[in-house]
Amino acid sequence: MSRLRRGLSALTPYVPGEQPRDGVPYVKLNTNESPYPPSPAVLAALTREAAGALRLYSDPTARELRLAIAELYGVGAENVACSNGSDEMLAFALDAFIEPETGFRTTDITYGFYSVFASLFGIRLASSRLNDDFSVPVAELISCPEPVMLANPNAQTGVFLPLDEVERIVAANPTRLVLIDEAYADFAPGSAIPLTKRYPNLLVIGTFSKSRSLAGARIGFAVGCEELISDLETVRNSFNPYNLNRLSLLAGTAAARDVAYFKETRDKVVATRERTKTALSALGFRFPDSEANFLLVSHPAIDGAALYLALRKRGILVRHLHGERLENSVRITVGSDRDMQRTLDAIRAILEECKGELS
Amino acid sequence: MSRLRRGLSALTPYVPGEQPRDGVPYVKLNTNESPYPPSPAVLAALTREAAGALRLYSDPTARELRLAIAELYGVGAENVACSNGSDEMLAFALDAFIEPETGFRTTDITYGFYSVFASLFGIRLASSRLNDDFSVPVAELISCPEPVMLANPNAQTGVFLPLDEVERIVAANPTRLVLIDEAYADFAPGSAIPLTKRYPNLLVIGTFSKSRSLAGARIGFAVGCEELISDLETVRNSFNPYNLNRLSLLAGTAAARDVAYFKETRDKVVATRERTKTALSALGFRFPDSEANFLLVSHPAIDGAALYLALRKRGILVRHLHGERLENSVRITVGSDRDMQRTLDAIRAILEECKGELS
Repeated sequence: MSRLRRGLSALTPYVPGEQPRDGVPYVKLNTNESPYPPSPAVLAALTREAAGALRLYSDPTARELRLAIAELYGVGAENVACSNGSDEMLAFALDAFIEPETGFRTTDITYGFYSVFASLFGIRLASSRLNDDFSVPVAELISCPEPVMLANPNAQTGVFLPLDEVERIVAANPTRLVLIDEAYADFAPGSAIPLTKRYPNLLVIGTFSKSRSLAGARIGFAVGCEELISDLETVRNSFNPYNLNRLSLLAGTAAARDVAYFKETRDKVVATRERTKTALSALGFRFPDSEANFLLVSHPAIDGAALYLALRKRGILVRHLHGERLENSVRITVGSDRDMQRTLDAIRAILEECKGELS
Repeated sequence: MSRLRRGLSALTPYVPGEQPRDGVPYVKLNTNESPYPPSPAVLAALTREAAGALRLYSDPTARELRLAIAELYGVGAENVACSNGSDEMLAFALDAFIEPETGFRTTDITYGFYSVFASLFGIRLASSRLNDDFSVPVAELISCPEPVMLANPNAQTGVFLPLDEVERIVAANPTRLVLIDEAYADFAPGSAIPLTKRYPNLLVIGTFSKSRSLAGARIGFAVGCEELISDLETVRNSFNPYNLNRLSLLAGTAAARDVAYFKETRDKVVATRERTKTALSALGFRFPDSEANFLLVSHPAIDGAALYLALRKRGILVRHLHGERLENSVRITVGSDRDMQRTLDAIRAILEECKGELS
């Protein structure tokens, strides 16, 4: 019998992408990780001395990491807060700023965790339907009264909302908070972070999990005006002040400072993504024009569930998502050129088989 | 201007012990860390390969770590949940199980974070006054209707509540949850974990921060019946499913498995604690009989704030706590024999100075 308090009786947790443990050496393209290892500077930072110092608590102010992130974006350390992955920062932000009865608004297709947070915190969630091309219905988000949460590029689709559109939403109502989840922004034409200098109602949340090859180190952050960051720090320090461990602080700081490696690996992922788009188009796939490190693809000859299973059988793990307008698609993380070659070869073989069955 | 939601307007965060950054090589006895480095097995587990694999997410089920903890306590993996430090687990447990209007009961002197969690989650907090010898008023906790949270040994005082007394509180009302925070239990005569097999209303929370020399790795856990753990997992997976990073999972698993090193270092701390008690008594200090890795000491010749400052000036960092019945004391973590020798030497010099001033 569950002893969960009444307010949580309907809580359905987030289901992360599968982390296979069946021993198969999958080409793992299901959770949008980087195909490249972390910067050599990260490996160099994780010394025996650092491991020995694990007996001591980590810096609860994450000072070095905040300074390194601040430098990346040309803001002050007082404009940056850090978290144990960006999911934790999303939770802190929603818990800190959203009045339960007002709630917040997001889009119907987006990161699945937003609605879980809404249940966990007992806050209302309003949802705007993406346009048929998966673009954001900007006018609706400009005029709505509630705070707005947008993933940009959007989760699942990879569609990027141009920054002047983001600014229109933010500028429309300075009393209303806008949260932009930029987990994938490094692969896209830009970030809304510079806008935080002009708009105290804008908070941007980022992660080291994708473009900095540190999914397993759990590093998220938020950038905003000093007051928003101070509020987030109040919540963080009331929940788990030592939320970042020593080794992740070192890894994150080293990764943030190795800008050359970041650009090199990010550019490789973007180039591979563009080549993969061309190859998939030639094979008859349809997909929104992703500016993230994944592609949401569908094909008239095979449905999403079948494609997911056929790829899995061939040692390639992609993600079959659930929900309206997604059932027929799979989401494929952009890996290395070699990963994508193997995937495209497998897809060709699968499509050949489908043709065989049809004829 | 703060944008915190109305329910958080009075939130005052927890203030962790100071993590000095002034470059002074303090004997650091202020946050109850272990004086010994983590097990050599921990250092061996943190390989270059493990660092390279940081590009991939960590196991959201923390399987290996849960198995290792389960083995330590002779329970099943389904009886264990893991967290990013035990503060996070305390937060999950209070958020999961406590009805805001019913609230929970703890003691007036205890871990300061419980009341912060109560504010954060908007839950009522009732407080029972410890007896004059800092022992727990057991009868009051047996008869009270609310869920009970106890630190055992108690935070700040180190006083241990014998397990038969814990059992009386738990057994008194099977519909009422009892949470035992055992951050310091490894230094004490026993753990309530075996009781979880008989009492489905008992949840025990532990940490690797103290007795396993891993404060900087942030590893907490809970042990209880399968239903309680499943509820905690629902909350954890609705907040941050990848809450433990890859390196902490490896470090924690290695530390849990090196039972010999654990016993050796734990026994050293306990032996040093007992020697330190004898020496402090001889110097005229008074203190509750701590079974944790710290001593809450006071002396008729010098008040707590003055002793804290005088020790700090001599390069020794202890904690001066605030709150009724604590003002005149400092809390000294039990370090190595050498740390305690330096501390006792400094204390002797300080007491000499006091005498000089008085005469």
